[in-house]
Amino acid sequence: MTEQIFETVVSTQASEGVAHIAPMGVRYQAGRVVLMPFKPSTTLANIVATRHAVLNLITDTRVFAGCVTGRREWPLLPADKIAGRRLACALHHVELRLDEHIDDVQRPVLRMARVHEASHAGFLGLNRAQAAVVEGAVLVSRLRMLPMDKIDAEMAYLQIAIDKTAGPGELEAWGWLQDAVAAHRAKAAP
Amino acid sequence: MTEQIFETVVSTQASEGVAHIAPMGVRYQAGRVVLMPFKPSTTLANIVATRHAVLNLITDTRVFAGCVTGRREWPLLPADKIAGRRLACALHHVELRLDEHIDDVQRPVLRMARVHEASHAGFLGLNRAQAAVVEGAVLVSRLRMLPMDKIDAEMAYLQIAIDKTAGPGELEAWGWLQDAVAAHRAKAAP
Repeated sequence: MTEQIFETVVSTQASEGVAHIAPMGVRYQAGRVVLMPFKPSTTLANIVATRHAVLNLITDTRVFAGCVTGRREWPLLPADKIAGRRLACALHHVELRLDEHIDDVQRPVLRMARVHEASHAGFLGLNRAQAAVVEGAVLVSRLRMLPMDKIDAEMAYLQIAIDKTAGPGELEAWGWLQDAVAAHRAKAAP
Repeated sequence: MTEQIFETVVSTQASEGVAHIAPMGVRYQAGRVVLMPFKPSTTLANIVATRHAVLNLITDTRVFAGCVTGRREWPLLPADKIAGRRLACALHHVELRLDEHIDDVQRPVLRMARVHEASHAGFLGLNRAQAAVVEGAVLVSRLRMLPMDKIDAEMAYLQIAIDKTAGPGELEAWGWLQDAVAAHRAKAAP
């Protein structure tokens, strides 16, 4: 059976307090939040060290596009109940404690219990341009694995939703992704 | 400048109380909700007659896929402050009053003031399969205008996000869209 996966941003911090954010697809299982970070990753190391993380539910897709194009600095605010930070742009955040850790060579499973959560802004409805930026960010994270004509075809397809439904935030995010594709093309050119 | 458009469902009722729902892309302008229904449409007729409507913000994409495949009966609940109904599955709903009506031969502009709003469920994060269903619903609503190879290519592309991130609701919605494409193919075959 397929399990629904949500595109979120997980924020963690190292024992010394250095914050780290990472886009992550998560699942919800019986009230817990299931993370499957790849090995090695800062998110995994931080959670193993501190036993905590913050789940950020966002619609500001600049964070997704930013994280795959070298823009990893996003405004953070202190978490309420745990040592950690949440994204300032989160519509909703959940403070998590490591509840179960199933190790794996590639992708350990971290089942996280909810310690606390809070809403900060309302959901405005689905937006096709936000979805296009998410797809574009997935594409850009895999540029080296894909032929150029497939990349161009996907970007052209996603451009339609951008042109029809984007606001300034999605346009900015889309521009970063377009720049990344252009830089890849320049590097790949003979 | 591009203005952000959100994919929502607008519910209205006729003077006699018959409910009607319609997927609609809406914009937010200075606190008001801007609807641009095509002429003629039941939504437009109902709003002109009753001066009210309900904006439903949903992530249950079965409603979008259902409305383009002949499934227009979705559970409704009474609105709180106006004569009208909201979708039972709405994460958030906004009760609206017609504030400004700019007529047009094709697409009149209805600027709606917010009378009341309420949240019913939390936002769980962006989901790629939900976005794929929305794109698939747009595609299915335009089947007669598109060549079969373009339809097949788009469905195959969208299938990737369905396979990776769908839950049971998105799978059901996607099945309806696939059936509609298959029915169109059978009709179009020589």
